[in-house]
Amino acid sequence: MKIIKLLSLAILFTGAIYGQVATKHAITLELAKKIAVAAENKANQMNIDVVIAIVDDGGNLVYFERMNGAQLGSIKVAKKKAVSAIFFKRPTKAYQERVAGGNNALLSVDEILPFEGGAPLVYENNYIGAIGVSGGTPEQDGIIAEAGAKILEEVAK
Amino acid sequence: MKIIKLLSLAILFTGAIYGQVATKHAITLELAKKIAVAAENKANQMNIDVVIAIVDDGGNLVYFERMNGAQLGSIKVAKKKAVSAIFFKRPTKAYQERVAGGNNALLSVDEILPFEGGAPLVYENNYIGAIGVSGGTPEQDGIIAEAGAKILEEVAK
Amino acid sequence: MKIIKLLSLAILFTGAIYGQVATKHAITLELAKKIAVAAENKANQMNIDVVIAIVDDGGNLVYFERMNGAQLGSIKVAKKKAVSAIFFKRPTKAYQERVAGGNNALLSVDEILPFEGGAPLVYENNYIGAIGVSGGTPEQDGIIAEAGAKILEEVAK
Amino acid sequence: MKIIKLLSLAILFTGAIYGQVATKHAITLELAKKIAVAAENKANQMNIDVVIAIVDDGGNLVYFERMNGAQLGSIKVAKKKAVSAIFFKRPTKAYQERVAGGNNALLSVDEILPFEGGAPLVYENNYIGAIGVSGGTPEQDGIIAEAGAKILEEVAK
Repeated sequence: MKIIKLLSLAILFTGAIYGQVATKHAITLELAKKIAVAAENKANQMNIDVVIAIVDDGGNLVYFERMNGAQLGSIKVAKKKAVSAIFFKRPTKAYQERVAGGNNALLSVDEILPFEGGAPLVYENNYIGAIGVSGGTPEQDGIIAEAGAKILEEVAK
Repeated sequence: MKIIKLLSLAILFTGAIYGQVATKHAITLELAKKIAVAAENKANQMNIDVVIAIVDDGGNLVYFERMNGAQLGSIKVAKKKAVSAIFFKRPTKAYQERVAGGNNALLSVDEILPFEGGAPLVYENNYIGAIGVSGGTPEQDGIIAEAGAKILEEVAK
Repeated sequence: MKIIKLLSLAILFTGAIYGQVATKHAITLELAKKIAVAAENKANQMNIDVVIAIVDDGGNLVYFERMNGAQLGSIKVAKKKAVSAIFFKRPTKAYQERVAGGNNALLSVDEILPFEGGAPLVYENNYIGAIGVSGGTPEQDGIIAEAGAKILEEVAK
Repeated sequence: MKIIKLLSLAILFTGAIYGQVATKHAITLELAKKIAVAAENKANQMNIDVVIAIVDDGGNLVYFERMNGAQLGSIKVAKKKAVSAIFFKRPTKAYQERVAGGNNALLSVDEILPFEGGAPLVYENNYIGAIGVSGGTPEQDGIIAEAGAKILEEVAK
């Protein structure tokens, strides 16, 4: 598998130079569903009803589910966490900490939602999308989002 | 009536398991009007002109009234307080206190209005809607909203 | 099961009169997933990549998936078809036909999307939500949405 | 009463000239509720569930109610009909007829909703507000709105 991967990277690189059109990894609906199952299982295990939103590398929605008891306010929050994580290529926790530290200027950026629970989906150093979770405390949402994002490590094996 | 209620809950549960269709309580216009009368009476007693907005469990408007002297700015504020209270299943006072405590990150969530005066309407542990009041100080709005929301306790008897 | 259902309806009625709190059926995530699987299967069978959106009785998103080749424009179209179908308690096809027949006035109503592919989800005469599908022709979207909505008939048995 | 009215008009007129500040008639919440009761009674009589919205002379909401079975899509439609009727000082039926006659250009005006069911509230030649009704056919909505608006004639006696 390792050889194929190196080869694949080589081809990506070659392609970019040769024809000036790059190649990128891309999330599929099948993968998004796997990520959601992992996140939902973690939420059930923690006994919390959440909304799970998964976007692609363009910030566009691929998959969404609202667990039965989840509050309606989490619909937009989960989506915005996912968009925030892919648009700025970092977990939303990073912004939570900055705003908590007094950096209110970040509130002027529409696509930033400064609460834990948004995590980029990274595959072989490519940001292929993001997951956003809302419904518990920011810390709980972060744990559930991570349970989903971690699936990428197994897929990569 | 108690037997009917217990039976009803049992069927609720059975229904949810059997057909994967749940059953939930729902606000009616008649109930919304009763809630509004209670809130308006309290406002009159306190000599304050307010806007009263009542939404259902989906955050959709059921009833609205603007008392004669109420400021126009309270139209949207009252509605947003009601939506905030049902979308996050808690009184808006909770968010007022957090933002006052320094949690500015909450300002990035569009559906949150962090001022007292929004209260969920709860019937037998079901969130069936919310009331939002605006026109006085946040504290006054909160008292008026509560006067409306309390009606549910009598209905439940 | 029939007796329990009749009893349940009786209590629904009693409850509405007694406490002015009504009772209504509600969609669950489990049911939404079943509906989506039926719609996705039909789409695969027809060899079309679509977006599937399912909302509850308040027009709030419960489930969403975008099949791999589906166009991004279908994200909002599918959602708006679902909202249109529940907000006006009829299939979006009804509006497509009216606009095709010259009723352009309908274009002034924001929540109406006048293309086939949105269908209400009806359970025991209750509008519990709606499904919206976009990605093929309006007619194809309509067939796929119907394949999803039809699941309710089996659930009701 | 007639003498008082003439006197009142005289004072209005005098006031306008003297201080360059005019005086206008204004809707009250009490009047709006009366109008709504008349409209709701007519709707009940016709066995239709509608949304009733009443705005003041500035197009700002004074009163709103959604009858129990009314479709959610009627929430915005009723409000927009009311705004349309006061913003353009004519019943929305006028625009329905024009668009039906091919005048699609009217669809570019955000505040126009070209369906019957919006009627200005006129008191002594003053446009003091408007009522918007949605839930039935445009014709039915128009009848219900008129039943509400007609109350002004009795008030004026």
